[in-house]
Amino acid sequence: VRSYLDCYPCFLRQALDAARRARLDEGGQARVLDSVLAALRTFDPSRPPPEMAARFHAVVREAAGSEDPYREEKARATREALDLYPDLAARVAAAADPLETALRLAVAGNVIDLGAQADYDLPAAVARVLVQDFAVCELAALREALAAAPWLLFLGDNAGETVFDRLLIETLGLPCTYAVRGGAVLNDATREDARAAGLDGAATLVDNGARVPGTVLELCSDAFRDLFARAPLILSKGMGNYESLDGRPEPVFHLLQAKCPVIARDLGVPVGAIVLASGGR
Amino acid sequence: VRSYLDCYPCFLRQALDAARRARLDEGGQARVLDSVLAALRTFDPSRPPPEMAARFHAVVREAAGSEDPYREEKARATREALDLYPDLAARVAAAADPLETALRLAVAGNVIDLGAQADYDLPAAVARVLVQDFAVCELAALREALAAAPWLLFLGDNAGETVFDRLLIETLGLPCTYAVRGGAVLNDATREDARAAGLDGAATLVDNGARVPGTVLELCSDAFRDLFARAPLILSKGMGNYESLDGRPEPVFHLLQAKCPVIARDLGVPVGAIVLASGGR
Repeated sequence: VRSYLDCYPCFLRQALDAARRARLDEGGQARVLDSVLAALRTFDPSRPPPEMAARFHAVVREAAGSEDPYREEKARATREALDLYPDLAARVAAAADPLETALRLAVAGNVIDLGAQADYDLPAAVARVLVQDFAVCELAALREALAAAPWLLFLGDNAGETVFDRLLIETLGLPCTYAVRGGAVLNDATREDARAAGLDGAATLVDNGARVPGTVLELCSDAFRDLFARAPLILSKGMGNYESLDGRPEPVFHLLQAKCPVIARDLGVPVGAIVLASGGR
Repeated sequence: VRSYLDCYPCFLRQALDAARRARLDEGGQARVLDSVLAALRTFDPSRPPPEMAARFHAVVREAAGSEDPYREEKARATREALDLYPDLAARVAAAADPLETALRLAVAGNVIDLGAQADYDLPAAVARVLVQDFAVCELAALREALAAAPWLLFLGDNAGETVFDRLLIETLGLPCTYAVRGGAVLNDATREDARAAGLDGAATLVDNGARVPGTVLELCSDAFRDLFARAPLILSKGMGNYESLDGRPEPVFHLLQAKCPVIARDLGVPVGAIVLASGGR
C-alpha cells in the first residue's frame, strides 16, 4: 500500500505521540515535528507508511536518547495478555471450532497498537472480536492452505499481541517460524518481547533484520527475504505488515483489524472491521 | 491562544480537506500539502491557529483558481438555516427565557463549521444544544453587561450560523454592529453571506478587513480595530474568534462549541461542550 495524502497528518500525529511517550519536553517534541515536516517533503509517497514511521521513530529515539522508549509499555501489554492466557486457552480448547476461535483471539490481540490508535482496551477487544463478523473471511481457503503446508511463517506485529499469536500457533499444530522486527520500533515485538510471551516454546524465532513497524522486504535481511521466499504459507498480523506486503505474489494471509480510514478503504471494509484476507485477492 | 503542537497534524488535515472541497486533483492536493509542510516549518507557534489557516486557505484558493471554493456550501448552509428560522423564532418567542433560548440556538448554529469538523447535522445540533448544560455559563454577567451597554459589537463566524445570530440579535433588542470576515475564507461569513441570512435588516454590517477565519486584530483594518476598541460590549462566536482574541482586555463574551481537544483543554471543558465565557476570566 502506498502512503496516501491522508497519511501525512497521521504521520505528524503519530510522531508527536511517540515523542510524548518518550517523555521529550515540548522543545524536543517541536524539534521532532520539524524534522518530520522536513522528512515528509522528500518522502516518496509510493512507499508504504511503515517506511515513514520507521524514520520518525528513529528521530524520536535519537532525540530521547533511548533505544526503546516503548519498553515498559510493551512489558505491561505482554503481562496483561499473559494474565488472560489461561482463560483464552481454555476457551479455545472448549470451542466447537478451535481454529476459528484462536484466529478471533489473535485478531483481538491486534488491538494492542500504539501507532494507529493511542489507546486500547484489551478485555473489551476480546469480548467484541469473539462475536464480531469478519468483514472479509477467507477461512476456508486458509484451512486448505494449512492442511497442505508443511510449515508456516508467522509475521508478528505488536508486543502483547504475541501472546495471542502463541495461542493460535499452539492451536494450529504446525511447525512455525515466528518473525519479529530486527530492532525495537514503536511497540512492535522484538525477539525479547516474543520470548517474554513464551513464543520461543511454540515456534522458531527469527528477526527480519529491519527496524520498521511492518515488513518492508527491501529493508529486511537477506536471510529473512530468503525465508520469506521459501515459506509455503505466510500468516501476517496487523496493518503495518499488510501495508508493506499487500499485492505481493507470495502465499500470504492477512489477519488484522482495520484501524484507520485509509486501510479500511483500501480493504473495502468499515473502520473497526476484522479481516482475514489472502494477499493475492 | 497559541498554536499547539497538536494543531500541526490538524492543519495538514484541514488543508487537505480544503483542497478536496475545492476539487483539486490528487496532484494539486499533494502540492497544497507540500506548501503547508514548508509553511509549518517557518510558522511562529506563538501565533493563533487561524493565522496559519488563513495561509493554507490562500494556497488552496490559488491552486484551485477560485476566490471562494466554499460558496455553494455556504449558500446551502444559509438556506438550511433559513428554513429552520420561523420555527426557531417561534420557540424563542414562546420561551420562558427568550435570551437563554436564543443564546442556545446561536451556539447550536456554531456547529456549521467546515474547519474543525468535516461534517455536521444542524437539526441534531439544535435538538442537543437546547437541552445541553453549558460547561461554562456566564449568563448573569452577560445579562448585566447587556443591560448597561448602549450597543453591541457581534463577531460573526460561519455562513448559515449567521441566521441563528440574527435571531439572537433580534431577541436582544439592542443596536448591533455585526462584523464579518474581510474576504471569503473557509466557510466563514462574508458581507454577502450575512446579507443572505437577512442580517442587514437586524444589524449594521461591517467587515474586519482580514481574510482570516478568526479575528486576528493585527491583520484587521484600522477602521475595524478602532470599532473593536470603542465597543462597549463584544459578543464573539466560535473557536476561530476565541483562538485569536482570548486574553484580550476588551469586554468580550465568547459563545462557542468546543470542537477540538486543544481548545477544550484550553477552556477546561470536554470536547463537545457549549460555552458562554467572558474573555477576561
